[in-house]
Amino acid sequence: MTRTIHAVHQVSRPQGAPTAENFAFVTEELAPLAEGTALVENLYFSVDPYMRQAMDEGPVAEGHWALDAPLEGRSLGRVIESRTPALAVGEIVGHRKAWRTHAVVTPDETRRIPDLAGVPLSAHLSAFGGTGLTAWVGLTRIARLQPGESIFVSAAAGGVGSAAGQLAKLIGAGRVIGSAGSPAKVKLATERLGYDVAFDYHDGPVMEQLRAAAPDGLDAYLDNVGGDHLEAAIERLRENGRIAWSGAIAQYNSTEAPAAPRNLFEVNLKALRMEGFLVRQHMDALPELYEFLAPHLASGRVVPEETVVEGFDRSVEAFLGLFRGENTGKMLVKVAD
Amino acid sequence: MTRTIHAVHQVSRPQGAPTAENFAFVTEELAPLAEGTALVENLYFSVDPYMRQAMDEGPVAEGHWALDAPLEGRSLGRVIESRTPALAVGEIVGHRKAWRTHAVVTPDETRRIPDLAGVPLSAHLSAFGGTGLTAWVGLTRIARLQPGESIFVSAAAGGVGSAAGQLAKLIGAGRVIGSAGSPAKVKLATERLGYDVAFDYHDGPVMEQLRAAAPDGLDAYLDNVGGDHLEAAIERLRENGRIAWSGAIAQYNSTEAPAAPRNLFEVNLKALRMEGFLVRQHMDALPELYEFLAPHLASGRVVPEETVVEGFDRSVEAFLGLFRGENTGKMLVKVAD
Repeated sequence: MTRTIHAVHQVSRPQGAPTAENFAFVTEELAPLAEGTALVENLYFSVDPYMRQAMDEGPVAEGHWALDAPLEGRSLGRVIESRTPALAVGEIVGHRKAWRTHAVVTPDETRRIPDLAGVPLSAHLSAFGGTGLTAWVGLTRIARLQPGESIFVSAAAGGVGSAAGQLAKLIGAGRVIGSAGSPAKVKLATERLGYDVAFDYHDGPVMEQLRAAAPDGLDAYLDNVGGDHLEAAIERLRENGRIAWSGAIAQYNSTEAPAAPRNLFEVNLKALRMEGFLVRQHMDALPELYEFLAPHLASGRVVPEETVVEGFDRSVEAFLGLFRGENTGKMLVKVAD
Repeated sequence: MTRTIHAVHQVSRPQGAPTAENFAFVTEELAPLAEGTALVENLYFSVDPYMRQAMDEGPVAEGHWALDAPLEGRSLGRVIESRTPALAVGEIVGHRKAWRTHAVVTPDETRRIPDLAGVPLSAHLSAFGGTGLTAWVGLTRIARLQPGESIFVSAAAGGVGSAAGQLAKLIGAGRVIGSAGSPAKVKLATERLGYDVAFDYHDGPVMEQLRAAAPDGLDAYLDNVGGDHLEAAIERLRENGRIAWSGAIAQYNSTEAPAAPRNLFEVNLKALRMEGFLVRQHMDALPELYEFLAPHLASGRVVPEETVVEGFDRSVEAFLGLFRGENTGKMLVKVAD
């Protein structure tokens, strides 16, 4: 059994956009397994926009990464050695010890991955992972999207957006409008991700493009970018509209205070609800999502949109690609078969 | 019976702060009452910050005022002549035909004012009027304030704020913090309006003063001013904090886009909920407020804070005084006994 593992550490803090120099690949020799632990071979892990914030200086207890130390992230792995009856060799588990080829875990640090017929393993990091659950919670619990209502989703071809378009349609939404950062992503959004209409935010001011796409206004907005998208959505939302704010990738690399929407006072005038949410506070929604979505995944009606980068040595490249818009859907690193 | 009535019309649109020149006092001769209507002698009406927005150009259907025409506002009057069995002479009714000494109304345009033992008539425009109901809805339905929680209220000595401090304490709030615009108002807030601590926003940056007043953070914020107060509140709110946004008097006279809080992204990071609301959508909360508050008003434990300007000829002066901070509590015009 291997005792030499590979890992990525963060070795410096970025100013603005992260670079490869902020990371280092390291090897480590594992001590023999302690009683009550198991060794997991990682198969997949996800790289996510929120990790940009973790790279900044800040308390580890609040999710910031320490330098020269193991990093966190959502992972799927197979138990290959065990000194606890709670984890059997061969079992597939989810855990948070990513950015490494192998991880030593206790049972408490893992969650069981249900074997859902016809659902591919990687879906547990995409459609059933943090991004899919974010889309589900944002649509159902925060925006409380009702059949027939119209919704705008920014970053429509991204991890959350690719799940949100398809879920919104399954919920029975009326007009589903998306924005994305390239013609290919716009095409993907309308052809495969459930969007009725989408636009490329490079083609002109978001405000103007959203006015054209939603001439009758909006009931809800699922925000993954902030900035000009948020301002345009506020303008288009009807009285009692809802904004579910799950992320702001446009701002993560900013070293200045982000531009706030100049029309924020319309939240008051139109009785809008703008609600941020943290998916970790909504883990109890996962069984609902399994029940709602698994049959559609198994039947092929819904396809989890994933960009899978193969090979642990490309982990940093995969992460940096997120900020250059190189992914469609969820960005995953495939570590082993 | 008088047939000559006095009224105030708006005759021009303000640029920035309104002035006396935007208004004119007019007299009018009434035609004989039509079948199905009644003549009401107005006793009180309220002048409110939201009226500044009504003065701007815009659709009458959305509450904007037409020039050279009767104006709206919350009023209390006595029926003095009636050609409908639904309105008896001598009855006290609430209606929206303010800024005039008398009004011709249909039964549909009026609401019955309950005779609550020990509650003064003017309270139906203050503690039980739009401002008191705004405070109640903001605290209970929007901020969902729980016993023991801490809350910040801006414009603590204003119409909404004077009701909110007392209501928050009755609900069982922990620390209730207010801001106001003069030493006298700060004193009033802590001595009579339920606030545990208050500060004068002229004494230094709101951010610093709120940090000192709420060193352990906040659970909720009832916003009546926007701007720097909103930014400071966002900084102080704990995870899952709530912002109930009922008004933004600081911005009504602005001819530029208002400054948005630079830390708005914390709504996402801390899973805050920022919710605007329109009290007209919550009129069904009024019976709750009667039940909750009437005994306290009757016993004198709660005193509705009102600034009563006597005499119809001082109506415009009363309204303009709102924007110079001349009121404590609800600003009312007393038209007749």
